Order: sequence, then structure tokens, then C-alpha cells
Amino acid sequence: MSDNIVKYTLNERDIPRYWYNIQADLPVPMAPALHPVTAQPLTPPDLAPLFPMELIMQEVSTERWIEIPDEVLDAYRLWRPTTLFRARRLEKLLGTPAKIFYKYEGVSPAGSHKPNTAVAQAYYNKKEGIKRIATETGAGQWGSALSFAGALFGIEIKVYMVRVSYDQKPYRRIMMEAWGGKCVPSPSPDTNVGRMMLAEDPNCPGSLGLAISEAVEDAMSRDDTHYSLGSVLNHVLLHQTVNGLEAKKLMEEVGEYPDIIIGCAGGGSNAAGLFLPFVKDKIEGSRPNLRVINVEPYSCPTMTKGPFAYDYGDNAKMAPIVKMYTLGHGYMPPPIHAGGLRYHGIAPIISHLLKLGFVEARAVHQLETFEAGIMFARTEGILSAPETMHAIRAVIDEALVCKKTGEAKTILFNHSGHGHVDMNAYDAYLSGKLQDYEYPDEKIRECLADLPKVG
Amino acid sequence: MSDNIVKYTLNERDIPRYWYNIQADLPVPMAPALHPVTAQPLTPPDLAPLFPMELIMQEVSTERWIEIPDEVLDAYRLWRPTTLFRARRLEKLLGTPAKIFYKYEGVSPAGSHKPNTAVAQAYYNKKEGIKRIATETGAGQWGSALSFAGALFGIEIKVYMVRVSYDQKPYRRIMMEAWGGKCVPSPSPDTNVGRMMLAEDPNCPGSLGLAISEAVEDAMSRDDTHYSLGSVLNHVLLHQTVNGLEAKKLMEEVGEYPDIIIGCAGGGSNAAGLFLPFVKDKIEGSRPNLRVINVEPYSCPTMTKGPFAYDYGDNAKMAPIVKMYTLGHGYMPPPIHAGGLRYHGIAPIISHLLKLGFVEARAVHQLETFEAGIMFARTEGILSAPETMHAIRAVIDEALVCKKTGEAKTILFNHSGHGHVDMNAYDAYLSGKLQDYEYPDEKIRECLADLPKVG
Repeated sequence: MSDNIVKYTLNERDIPRYWYNIQADLPVPMAPALHPVTAQPLTPPDLAPLFPMELIMQEVSTERWIEIPDEVLDAYRLWRPTTLFRARRLEKLLGTPAKIFYKYEGVSPAGSHKPNTAVAQAYYNKKEGIKRIATETGAGQWGSALSFAGALFGIEIKVYMVRVSYDQKPYRRIMMEAWGGKCVPSPSPDTNVGRMMLAEDPNCPGSLGLAISEAVEDAMSRDDTHYSLGSVLNHVLLHQTVNGLEAKKLMEEVGEYPDIIIGCAGGGSNAAGLFLPFVKDKIEGSRPNLRVINVEPYSCPTMTKGPFAYDYGDNAKMAPIVKMYTLGHGYMPPPIHAGGLRYHGIAPIISHLLKLGFVEARAVHQLETFEAGIMFARTEGILSAPETMHAIRAVIDEALVCKKTGEAKTILFNHSGHGHVDMNAYDAYLSGKLQDYEYPDEKIRECLADLPKVG
Repeated sequence: MSDNIVKYTLNERDIPRYWYNIQADLPVPMAPALHPVTAQPLTPPDLAPLFPMELIMQEVSTERWIEIPDEVLDAYRLWRPTTLFRARRLEKLLGTPAKIFYKYEGVSPAGSHKPNTAVAQAYYNKKEGIKRIATETGAGQWGSALSFAGALFGIEIKVYMVRVSYDQKPYRRIMMEAWGGKCVPSPSPDTNVGRMMLAEDPNCPGSLGLAISEAVEDAMSRDDTHYSLGSVLNHVLLHQTVNGLEAKKLMEEVGEYPDIIIGCAGGGSNAAGLFLPFVKDKIEGSRPNLRVINVEPYSCPTMTKGPFAYDYGDNAKMAPIVKMYTLGHGYMPPPIHAGGLRYHGIAPIISHLLKLGFVEARAVHQLETFEAGIMFARTEGILSAPETMHAIRAVIDEALVCKKTGEAKTILFNHSGHGHVDMNAYDAYLSGKLQDYEYPDEKIRECLADLPKVG
């Protein structure tokens, strides 16, 4: 074995005991979320039919450290702490002086970072006596993570899965069922809004916005049921910091501090989970040169082309109005394989940090992400999820810049999950059937015309 | 977090530096392998067209410890050492006083234990100047593991995949391609035997025996090409002991010695890889009460119903004749979902130990394995491969015996892989479409009539 270590691990006793809340350290507070009907600032009681009070309070908390409950830690240690890898084989292939590190979240039972918040949300709901949670899922990562969490805490999970994905990606639906979750294609006959859509068009392919509406209606209509979201919201990003805190501890053990942190960003929770504990240092002034790059698809260029504006979280206008970079709540991205990156907005926390200049954003094309994913698979071994390949593309590009300049920069990225359930996307790429999509200029202009007139 | 640890991990520096070779400690030597044509004991030169000389020597070595080359260690540490878990949630569900431990091999890039030998085999072939390896694969686990290894060592991999699996399990084929492997359905037009079969029946579904014949013919016909096998052979089991040695070190750290070790067994390499370093203690007399249980499917009851006899390794009679428990080389098991457990024989090393009474065997039905797999998923989180569920079934049964007797036995099992690419099997089970198969008494009698008349 060569002398250079490639894996850095923590003991299960080293799982962080607190999540880190960036809201304590923001130099400027975030704009408040608004009620979707009244457009007035949301109050905790407004959200009580949807979320347990502890999550609602986390959403607006300015406490710096929020204690992770014992029951959540007990669930975390089924797969946490996760390993920090040095990608020495990839570095060698690239011939770069850059040092590339990645935190690998694909070892969770669901294969991604999503369970970090799923088990926390299931726990707080259980504690409040909730018996059932309704949620939506696009490609199925979130629905399966929440089903896993539901199994651990004895909560019934009902997932409204966008019809077109339900038909195309049966493996994710079956994963939900294996953990005891119930998954129906959306639109479904189980809600008013679903029945209305089906009456109009029995073959309606569905959309994430519609699935959110079904899950919210389900939760609103039953006392024993709450609603749950897998990204975007402040409390979701908070829970994901468990990963960034582990990474920070491990980087300290390595004796390195990242010059550049990279993550793919759809709703933004995996990227923010990794970078928030480091961005703290940048805000405080001790790491002024730290660069943080959020990578999005060129075909859904929320951060690189959208305005920073108040918009609805869903296209049915039932979710809160939040201030974020957005392409308009009606925007339907092209059918790229990174289903987790097809959201019209981006987490308000990331939006706020982007506006303040603490983080950056970059858009990459689909084909170049797969090229990067294949390079990664053939050096580091891991078959990455298409979402994660967006981060890998940017990592390789930065490492190649270092090759030109001769700088030995330290790059850290979040490897958000494996792609074993996304093999059809690999097949499309390897057989030359995958395409890039142009920047959808006009479509976005149309959608932006429909932003709410507030703020 | 509760006080009781659930995860035990080693540092990458603790990956064993030597594989353990049980042949050094057998009280009675194994029967020699015979040439498939002459039925005379095989000599190393007989095997040289198929394997590199270092693997051939490992096959017959009686050295106790065989050093793991640095290049193989460098590959191992992409995912090794793997974690030892205490299944506290499963114990609680069962209400058993038993302590259940499992070593989890599903974190490898291919999702199973197979890369432990794949990277070693690729390395030794590379060292001998071989540019290309041909192999067969049934359900695709082995073909994908070898493709991964080929990517690391720059060796071209050609996989002949049983046609019916090639059509039914496209994800495994795509995994091979993502790592750069070439996968064709067998029978293929690429070999004489394949062309002959296709001329007879263009829709021939193929069989593992036929795929072996194609891979062997491919390797024999090209100087730059060798053949590779993913289980059964002594050197394969040898490489898998890296896992058992890690497990032994970790159990020492825990301060427990297993009363019972359990593994699922098709060719037998994952089970043996875990138990061989412990069986050493039983042979030496220090652990006389250790029980080792190899679990096989009731529909392919090699160890529980077959005789211990000389038989061909493949049904085309091109592979060596070895002494093993066998159902006859012509036996075609029913289409159970644990594709990795559908082999007509079992590793000669396991057969020998079974005959000598150092290990046991047990057969379980398909439906009860899925019931066990679902219990495991909803407590420990991991969605297990159908093969692994066979081990889990026996673990649960032993833990329930402890519940009755009140004994706090220590059970250790090998969790050989995740089931993320086997979700169609879960679907069949959850939707009530899965069935058990009767013991195929007559079919086996027929096949046993065709054993070679040797030994």
C-alpha cells in the first residue's frame, strides 16, 4: 500500500451532537417567508397544520447550535459518520497539483444524503404524536429516504410521486414500499386536486408542483397527518449540516482547509449541508479567500440566470412565498437525468448567501457532467448519481485550472449519492442518446412574468 | 445517542497485509482437481492458458499467509476496511438475547464482496502482461465487479452474460459499461460455441454453463486474453479472507467471539471469506464449539441434498473436474431471484470442510428469505440483495432459538451486498407474485446420473 492515506474516518462517538444554524451568523437577516394567500409574513401557527412545532421553530431560529436529539443520533449511526476520501486516483489521471477531497454520502441506506433530514423530520413528527406524513417526490430519492425514516420511527409515509417518474423509475417506488411506505402516481384519485386533474386528463404526466399540492391537501385534511419537504427549507439545510461538521472535523485531522468547496444544488440542501460550517469562517473573516461553488444544470439555471425575488415554492401556489433565486414557479425544466436538480428555485439560505457574495454559482451542461462521472467511476470506483456528477464536473474543471497555474489548491466536494438506481441515465449517455439543452431564454421570461407582486 | 455502540471500524492502515490460506491448516488435504478431458490431476501448465501463474500457484499453495500486493491494497482501500455492525434494532424487534453482528460489504463500488477478488485477479493478470480478460456472469454481480477492477488496472474486460439475465437485468450490464467493460448476451456470435447455439436456436436463453464455455473459448483463442472466475476456486476464497480477517480483528476489539457464523453460499466465496479465519481456530482446537452455517436455497440444495463427488465446474464440461457437493453439472435451478446462489456445485474448500464436519449447511425457502430481508430493511435500514437475505433468514432463526432458550449467543454474519439493483425482486415479493419451489428430486436424480466416472 502506498504511504498516502485516501480515507479519513471518524468514530460513531464523533457524530456531531449539534446542528449548525447559519442564521445565527448572517450579517444581514433573511427576508421573511410570506403566506401564499395573504402575502403577509408567516407566523408559526400558519405552519402548524403542516409541520411539528419544533421544526417550525428551527425554521426561524437564530440559535447558533441546535441539539440533535438522542433518537436522531441513534438513527444517524446506522450509516454516519461518513468517510472523507482523498481522490488520489482522479488527481493522478488529471495530472493536477490540486488536492481533491470528497465526503461520500452514498453509503446511507437510501444511497444519498437525504436521510440526514428524513430521520430528523420523522422523529419530530413522531414526538408530536403524528402518525402519518404525506410528501411528494420527483425522481424518488426523497420519497425513499422518508420511507426509510418512517420505518425507523413507526410513522406511515404516503408519497405522491410525479406520474412520469413513477412509470420511468419503478426501482425508487419499490424501495419506498420495501421500507413500508405507500407510493402513488400523482395525479392520484386520493385527493381533490388529483381527481380534478385526472378528470381533465386521465393520462396527465404530473409535475412536482402538482405532487406538492396533493401532499399538502392530504396533510391539511387529516389531523393525524403532517407534510414534509426534502430540501429548500431552512430546517432541512440545518439538518444537513451534520455532514459539513463531520467534514470540517476530518479536514482538521488531515491538516487542510479547503480553498474551494463544491456541491451540486437543486433545492440546495446537500451543498449547503457541507459548506455552511465553513462559510461561517468566511463570514467571521477568518477565511476571506474561501470559494464556495454551487453547481446547477444549464437547463435549469436558477442561480446563474434567475432574479433574486419573492416566489412561490410550488407551481400550484399553495406553498409559502420565499425570497430566492428563481426561474418562476411555473418553470418546467427539460427532462435532464439529474431529476433532483430540476427545481425552479433554490434554498433561501443559499440565495441570501449568493446575494451577499459569500458563495458563487455555476451552470454546467448535461453531457459534460456524464463525461466527468465516467472519469470518476473509472478512477475512484463509485458510480455517481447524475446530480452528483454536476459537482464532479466543476471539481475537475477547477483541478484543471490548477494544472495550468501550477497551484496546489485544496478542493472539497460533497459526493451526495451513488447512481446504482440511475443506470438508465448512464445507458443513454454511453449509447450516445443523451443531449444537451439550450438555455431556455423565452420560457423563463414567460415564467418570470408570473412572480407574485410582493416584497 | 444511547450508550451502546453499533459500528466498529478499522483504519485503512489496518487492512490485512496477508490473505489467509486454509490449505495450510487442513487436517486432511483436499482431493486434487482433475483435467476435464484426461481426468488426470491438473498441473500448473494445464491452467496457464487461462490464469496467470501467480493465481495458479495460489490455487494449490499450502503457505498459511500469502502477501497482498501493494497495488491490490491500494485498490482495496477505495472501500476497505468495511464496517462491523451490531444489529441492535433487529435484536430489539426480535426480542432476542442474542447479539447479532454483521460485516457489511455493500459499500464497495459494485455493491458487494465480489471486488475483493476482482481487483486481485486483475492485478495478477496485468502483472503477467495480459491485456484482456474474458469471463461469464449470471445475474451480473461478478461481471460488474471485474469491470470495475479492469478500469483500475487498465485491462479490457469482456463479459458473456447469460442472455435471459442480460435482457431482464439491464442495470448490471450498464454498470459494466460505465466502468468500460464490454458485455454481450450469451450465446453470442463472438465464439464458435455461441454461433453454433445461435444457429440451432436464435432465441436461446443461454445458461451459466454456456457462458463459461464462451469465455473459456475466448481466452483460449487469444494470446493477450485470460479467463477469470468469481467464486468456487481456492484462490477466490483466499482473496475473500481479507474480509474475515478484518472481522476477526474487529470482534477482538468488541471483546466477543462468535458462537455462530452465518453466510449465504452459492459458489461459496463470501461465506468462506468471512468464516475461514475463524474455522482455523476450530481446526486447531481452541474453539471446538464454533458453529458455521452455510445457507443455500431450498431449490438449489447443493450441500443439503447433493453427494460429495467429483463433477465438472460447468455444464459444457470444459472447466476442471473438482470434488465438491454437487447436484450434477447439468442441473438448472428454478428461476429464484438470488441469481448468485443458482450454481450446481459449491467451492471445494467448503465441501471439504463440510465433509470433515467443521461447517454445516442449511437450505431455506425463497419467501421466508424475503420476509427476513424486509424485517432487516425496516430495522437496520439496508435493503439487502436476495442472496444476502438467505443469511439473514438463518440469523433470525438462530436468534429466535436464543429467545426460546434464553441463551445470549453471539451471531456473526456476512452481509454480502445491497439490493438496490434487485428492486424487481422486492416488487415481486411485495406484490405477492413470488413463489417457493419444491425440492426438485427427480431432476436432481437425473443430473446426478451424469457425474464423471472418476475419483
